[in-house]
Amino acid sequence: MDLNADLGEGFGAWRLGDDEALLDLVTSANVACGFHAGDPATMRRVCAGAAVRGVAVGAQVGYRDLAGFGRRRIEYAFDDLRDDVLYQIGALDGFCRVAGTAVRYVKPHGALYNTAAVDEVQAAAVVAAVRDYDRSLPVLCQPGSVLAQLAAGSGLTTVGEGFADRGYTVDGRLVARSAPGALVVDPEAVTARAVRMAVERVVESVDGVLVPAPVASICLHGDTPGAVELVRRVRAALSSAGVTVAPFAG
Amino acid sequence: MDLNADLGEGFGAWRLGDDEALLDLVTSANVACGFHAGDPATMRRVCAGAAVRGVAVGAQVGYRDLAGFGRRRIEYAFDDLRDDVLYQIGALDGFCRVAGTAVRYVKPHGALYNTAAVDEVQAAAVVAAVRDYDRSLPVLCQPGSVLAQLAAGSGLTTVGEGFADRGYTVDGRLVARSAPGALVVDPEAVTARAVRMAVERVVESVDGVLVPAPVASICLHGDTPGAVELVRRVRAALSSAGVTVAPFAG
Amino acid sequence: MDLNADLGEGFGAWRLGDDEALLDLVTSANVACGFHAGDPATMRRVCAGAAVRGVAVGAQVGYRDLAGFGRRRIEYAFDDLRDDVLYQIGALDGFCRVAGTAVRYVKPHGALYNTAAVDEVQAAAVVAAVRDYDRSLPVLCQPGSVLAQLAAGSGLTTVGEGFADRGYTVDGRLVARSAPGALVVDPEAVTARAVRMAVERVVESVDGVLVPAPVASICLHGDTPGAVELVRRVRAALSSAGVTVAPFAG
Amino acid sequence: MDLNADLGEGFGAWRLGDDEALLDLVTSANVACGFHAGDPATMRRVCAGAAVRGVAVGAQVGYRDLAGFGRRRIEYAFDDLRDDVLYQIGALDGFCRVAGTAVRYVKPHGALYNTAAVDEVQAAAVVAAVRDYDRSLPVLCQPGSVLAQLAAGSGLTTVGEGFADRGYTVDGRLVARSAPGALVVDPEAVTARAVRMAVERVVESVDGVLVPAPVASICLHGDTPGAVELVRRVRAALSSAGVTVAPFAG
Repeated sequence: MDLNADLGEGFGAWRLGDDEALLDLVTSANVACGFHAGDPATMRRVCAGAAVRGVAVGAQVGYRDLAGFGRRRIEYAFDDLRDDVLYQIGALDGFCRVAGTAVRYVKPHGALYNTAAVDEVQAAAVVAAVRDYDRSLPVLCQPGSVLAQLAAGSGLTTVGEGFADRGYTVDGRLVARSAPGALVVDPEAVTARAVRMAVERVVESVDGVLVPAPVASICLHGDTPGAVELVRRVRAALSSAGVTVAPFAG
Repeated sequence: MDLNADLGEGFGAWRLGDDEALLDLVTSANVACGFHAGDPATMRRVCAGAAVRGVAVGAQVGYRDLAGFGRRRIEYAFDDLRDDVLYQIGALDGFCRVAGTAVRYVKPHGALYNTAAVDEVQAAAVVAAVRDYDRSLPVLCQPGSVLAQLAAGSGLTTVGEGFADRGYTVDGRLVARSAPGALVVDPEAVTARAVRMAVERVVESVDGVLVPAPVASICLHGDTPGAVELVRRVRAALSSAGVTVAPFAG
Repeated sequence: MDLNADLGEGFGAWRLGDDEALLDLVTSANVACGFHAGDPATMRRVCAGAAVRGVAVGAQVGYRDLAGFGRRRIEYAFDDLRDDVLYQIGALDGFCRVAGTAVRYVKPHGALYNTAAVDEVQAAAVVAAVRDYDRSLPVLCQPGSVLAQLAAGSGLTTVGEGFADRGYTVDGRLVARSAPGALVVDPEAVTARAVRMAVERVVESVDGVLVPAPVASICLHGDTPGAVELVRRVRAALSSAGVTVAPFAG
Repeated sequence: MDLNADLGEGFGAWRLGDDEALLDLVTSANVACGFHAGDPATMRRVCAGAAVRGVAVGAQVGYRDLAGFGRRRIEYAFDDLRDDVLYQIGALDGFCRVAGTAVRYVKPHGALYNTAAVDEVQAAAVVAAVRDYDRSLPVLCQPGSVLAQLAAGSGLTTVGEGFADRGYTVDGRLVARSAPGALVVDPEAVTARAVRMAVERVVESVDGVLVPAPVASICLHGDTPGAVELVRRVRAALSSAGVTVAPFAG
């Protein structure tokens, strides 16, 4: 099982999350590429830190919206979104090259992640950018999402990810953030869910039904209080359960 | 002799210069990379147009200053400038890859060009970025500048460029823009100077003395009225004089 | 009847439209405030030019999206949009003050205009910003739009505007840009429609039915080829028809 | 004696410093205006918080450089800097108006502060912006700086500020940050220096000589660990020494 988290999400003088601590714990780093967050010096630092530790670097591509941190949907034209995504992948790959590695996968951020999960135009733009850049790059996304479907349909590798700290519906989707059960906050529960996803490939829905979780990576959030400690616990629990924690991408 | 010009300097809804016309005339395109000008969709279009015509693409790297068009000096820290330059090269290279080509050289833009010509910190930052990214990439710069010296000193290839529409001092430097003779505006004179640079490798200084012009590329400006026509004349004159007009970079 | 057009939509080195020519023709200038277009030096220049000519200055507020020129919808949170709008009004008012005038009205730009015409959250955010800043400021908008309704409902003055170069449906709405009849391109027709709006307060719909046009201002576009000449013709035709062309705001 | 600190220096999702805690302690808030830091929603919040507490709001104007946090010198043209400064003052004043107050003074931030202290062009641009906007607005600056001289020379009120946590030379200037004695880190020493500035209007230089400190405000930094606690101690010490702590403006 892979553990991924968003890294390099500071900008200039502003810091966010503890990149160094997370690099010691995750196996895949979704590195912000400068559009919703991230600046070149931070990108270099995180890529170098990842390469040294054998952590896979993914391009965490987002909307061009520093003020909104990429969290508000923007109705991009297809071409513009495709090219904004491609630009970000290329820029990050330059820092990976310096660090002796390469971008290993692509994962959309924030509102782009959510929109590409349901919107054909935006999903297709992300797919086109990845295909144009390097069709061997996997896309890290939600199983069953529109992005996953379009990516697979056009020959890209998709890697499903699960959220140990989010509630699931009985049909395997995330509970909307505004609905009850959207967030799992108890660290014990989060840890147990992560282990179950890894070992049994299932997750318990808010209705108590076990639903399939065809995931090869678990996403953990690094920017909340106690986040690093929670990642540490999840990783330890996975190891105790005999799960090999390793990058999905080579 | 190579002919280079700045291309792709629009941004979003704003256009600047006639990229299509210039692509038919120059042999090297200095493509703006999004920091002082240029946006991803424009970068893709210009790279594609260049590739189709056999025009070499260079990364026209600039300060992060859209509002100032990269024309005002910024006192960057070394690391930040190095990484901003590297980011831009990587981003442009992604679009070159899509177009079936690659970034063939690096040329600083505007105030970064002028500053790196005299300032060791900024010149060294440009050199470090190019070395980190790909030490086989040539740097297009003014012969004798600090940038040319540091680049050569650290093992990079440097390519000297001349300005047929600028006055030169007797020691081979450009006349300051505020001084008499800074600009050569007569198209006949510009054309004649270009031919002389190419054939005799000299340029007549404002004092009437011939000075060496160790240049492999002539820079022409594309964003002024009549610019395209002037480039056309220069190119025709070079051909008539038996000069092969071709990219300096492979 | 008032004539309004978007002005000051350049940014830094990039120009768009002929501000000087339009200032001689319109009676209300929708001045871009720096978020989708416009920079401080341009804002000062346009405000000064408007004040000298007795042209009313309006705050043309837009999304924070220079790369998209404010033309793509962004799903702002209410507070963020309200405060982005308020910021822009205040900034423009500073330049009006220098020019001896003041912001006389507010008009949303581009995708914000279109969204606030139908979306309650965004319309309410614009209304809240105007009310917070100065509840005597009129809002220039489409008659019957959600923005017009909410603005009127919260005690703001609304001023309806018509588009002489756009097709109307039989219920007084604009024909969607993708539908036949969306644009009226013949200058004669545009001019005739403007006169009819001013004199008879009606416009002929795409179905040939006359529909009411309760408008106190006609919007003309300044950034297309021939735009200035068209504005000139419309203004001349209105004068010939005995219509007084003057700002709606004092 | 007045106590001032930089506030509102977050941007979007990024926070910096503890605005709420500082608003309870300072008497003047230098509020970032969106160019080097600060966003509209933050500006509104800080202005509201200041107004409620009787804290004077100053426009903390900076270079247009979010990535560099306004800390690197930019060689602006006079007009552009003047207009960028004016834009920021106007924008902040809008939020002050909403909060029932007004911008009470102007203080340049970071590299603009340092540059305007020694550079006539940039100092003159700041002075011109303040004069254009409202010639009754004081400029908060270092006594004896070029900015102080030009501001006073053109009829503006200047207010001198001192730094209790910085070393001074024998001629009353700040010790360069790279030189020994640049920073005073011991809280006891900082507090004692603040009291001495307030009571005796002197400060001990790095050479041990007492030099005049003609200051009406003491600047404290809010973005370092322990900053809030230090401000609290300084304020308490001033009160214990019988110094009235109150805004200089308003």
